[in-house]
Amino acid sequence: MRTIAILTDFGLTDNYTGVMKGVILKINPNVNIIDISHDIEPQDISGAALILKGSYKYFPKKTIFLVVVDPGVGSGRLPIIVYSRNYIFVGPDNGVLNLAAKEDGIKRIIEIRNKKYFIKPVSDTFHGRDIFAPASAYLSKGKSGNLLGPSLDSMKELVIPKPEIDKNIIKGKVIHIDRFGDLVTNIDRKLFYRITKNKKFRIKIKNKFLSSIAKSYKSVRPGEPLAIFGSLNFLEISVNGGSAQERFSAKKGYEVSIKVK
Amino acid sequence: MRTIAILTDFGLTDNYTGVMKGVILKINPNVNIIDISHDIEPQDISGAALILKGSYKYFPKKTIFLVVVDPGVGSGRLPIIVYSRNYIFVGPDNGVLNLAAKEDGIKRIIEIRNKKYFIKPVSDTFHGRDIFAPASAYLSKGKSGNLLGPSLDSMKELVIPKPEIDKNIIKGKVIHIDRFGDLVTNIDRKLFYRITKNKKFRIKIKNKFLSSIAKSYKSVRPGEPLAIFGSLNFLEISVNGGSAQERFSAKKGYEVSIKVK
Amino acid sequence: MRTIAILTDFGLTDNYTGVMKGVILKINPNVNIIDISHDIEPQDISGAALILKGSYKYFPKKTIFLVVVDPGVGSGRLPIIVYSRNYIFVGPDNGVLNLAAKEDGIKRIIEIRNKKYFIKPVSDTFHGRDIFAPASAYLSKGKSGNLLGPSLDSMKELVIPKPEIDKNIIKGKVIHIDRFGDLVTNIDRKLFYRITKNKKFRIKIKNKFLSSIAKSYKSVRPGEPLAIFGSLNFLEISVNGGSAQERFSAKKGYEVSIKVK
Repeated sequence: MRTIAILTDFGLTDNYTGVMKGVILKINPNVNIIDISHDIEPQDISGAALILKGSYKYFPKKTIFLVVVDPGVGSGRLPIIVYSRNYIFVGPDNGVLNLAAKEDGIKRIIEIRNKKYFIKPVSDTFHGRDIFAPASAYLSKGKSGNLLGPSLDSMKELVIPKPEIDKNIIKGKVIHIDRFGDLVTNIDRKLFYRITKNKKFRIKIKNKFLSSIAKSYKSVRPGEPLAIFGSLNFLEISVNGGSAQERFSAKKGYEVSIKVK
Repeated sequence: MRTIAILTDFGLTDNYTGVMKGVILKINPNVNIIDISHDIEPQDISGAALILKGSYKYFPKKTIFLVVVDPGVGSGRLPIIVYSRNYIFVGPDNGVLNLAAKEDGIKRIIEIRNKKYFIKPVSDTFHGRDIFAPASAYLSKGKSGNLLGPSLDSMKELVIPKPEIDKNIIKGKVIHIDRFGDLVTNIDRKLFYRITKNKKFRIKIKNKFLSSIAKSYKSVRPGEPLAIFGSLNFLEISVNGGSAQERFSAKKGYEVSIKVK
Repeated sequence: MRTIAILTDFGLTDNYTGVMKGVILKINPNVNIIDISHDIEPQDISGAALILKGSYKYFPKKTIFLVVVDPGVGSGRLPIIVYSRNYIFVGPDNGVLNLAAKEDGIKRIIEIRNKKYFIKPVSDTFHGRDIFAPASAYLSKGKSGNLLGPSLDSMKELVIPKPEIDKNIIKGKVIHIDRFGDLVTNIDRKLFYRITKNKKFRIKIKNKFLSSIAKSYKSVRPGEPLAIFGSLNFLEISVNGGSAQERFSAKKGYEVSIKVK
């Protein structure tokens, strides 16, 4: 069975996600529907793009990612399908599909335009149900994207701010905070080791300094902070048995810097 | 594969929903189980009935809707199956199934009474697990409802307050607030156009007046409110890029009125 | 189709659970994946163990329970598979699997050690994705646990505090509070009837006394508290149409005692 994996900012209180799944099963009853998350902050396109980039490669090849974080619904932004080397992405052309598709290698971009494959009447506010879910379902049945609309030359790019590097200092920031209060920074593993090499370093967060990378949350005493590379391969600040978010009263955008000695 | 779609007020913190799914798969391992929502406000029968009415028709025909919003569990209310023209509804006879089943056309109502199809011992507090989930699973395997109990002549009616209409004024109210802070009113599209026809109108919410129906959230400047017909076909008050709930400090029951000129 | 049922403390905001499901489907696309809950309090091993014990037996035989409540990830605790009489449990050896497996009857314990079945590189923080999810998926395809690692003689025991019994008094406490504000105590049905027999009794919570076991939430007037045996077979304190948690400002650990007359 083919997999459709869904990522939205719909939350789980309303019926939006359930209705999209109904639409999918009405078109293709033999498909695995998986939730990545529906708890993206409302309208947070770059948050969703990061989550998608950190998730897609764990799914079976040919998985269809149905992504609806769509503050521009009903305005000019195009509904698109992006075929990458191993996957298919369906959603609005507002950048949300860009990071993942680019990493995997974009092969073809299609505008979803053929009304034959829409749920009618198309609402002004819920293209997830009326355009994106049916497109995903038809693709999962093996329909070619060519039937859904014409090719496009490009898609909207999304730029995530990189850390600033000033000689021996890396100035990064918190780009995501997870449920455990772990602070995910924009400093990735490769960059970190390229700059620090085998030298000593000091990671600064607020008034606290850390001088090693932990191998596990239990590398430090309970209640103590640590630096660790998380499952997204970004440097994270955590607290053993606690919450770094609380400990440092941290928010998204909070600075985390590294000085190489 | 047949679909069972579940709607409850169980939340996702406890294991209630997971256990119902276990019960279903033990009886029928070849069924699609879909969540509509489990975040209905505890014991909010009319909220659930509205969500069900706004959802059911997007699902495949013959979908079984397992609805457990059941403050009267263990008391006199009957557990029922309702066959409508295209769907099957399973839940307590407290009105929660009524709006959807009536809209689709009620064909037959059955009391679930045959203990052979219960999980035993039947608890006093969780008929979702012990009565409704197994009934849904047996129906999804093709068992006839007749085996589960006797027919009933009627089911409990549910009445949703309609807007008051006084000559050229429609007095509606907020009946649902979604995750984005959109205020869903009880003024539906048909009623709106029947009263306003092609005349000018003024929608009043608190001290703010709106004189057009937007085609998209971006029809107004960021931060500005707008009126739009949402995916349930009710008039909604929204804010472009923001929350109408916050903007107007609105709650359920809040008045939204329309004056036709 | 085989079932994998997942229980974690990951919440639903992040992509952790979705990614584990992707990993599973990549290995075995023909499996039912069911969520028990992802809203266990972060790192609450005994809370998760209780929920698992209250859930497992409702699932089809041979269901694989993938349980990731794992504050010791990356430290010494072993990843294990536990075969019980009717089920298979996969997770960290920190006690979280113990109550359910013991109740069903432990048959064999295996350490997951064969790197061939890991997702590589294995991260320091997310064995759910890299070790437990793939192990569960291979087991669901019929792979024998013997291929995944060597047998172990024992697993970590978990002890849940029992009520104190002092002649004619049972001193229990609240061990779980559900979404409806129901207070679940550690006094189980068997113990209750063994001590109270057919005598009169008085249940004390704060300054309130209850002298009967209700058959339904509606056995008392709206807003009034009641005592009832819940779906986990533990004594629960509830309020008809309200929340016992609010009514008694109760927290976990709160005392509930019974005096037999």
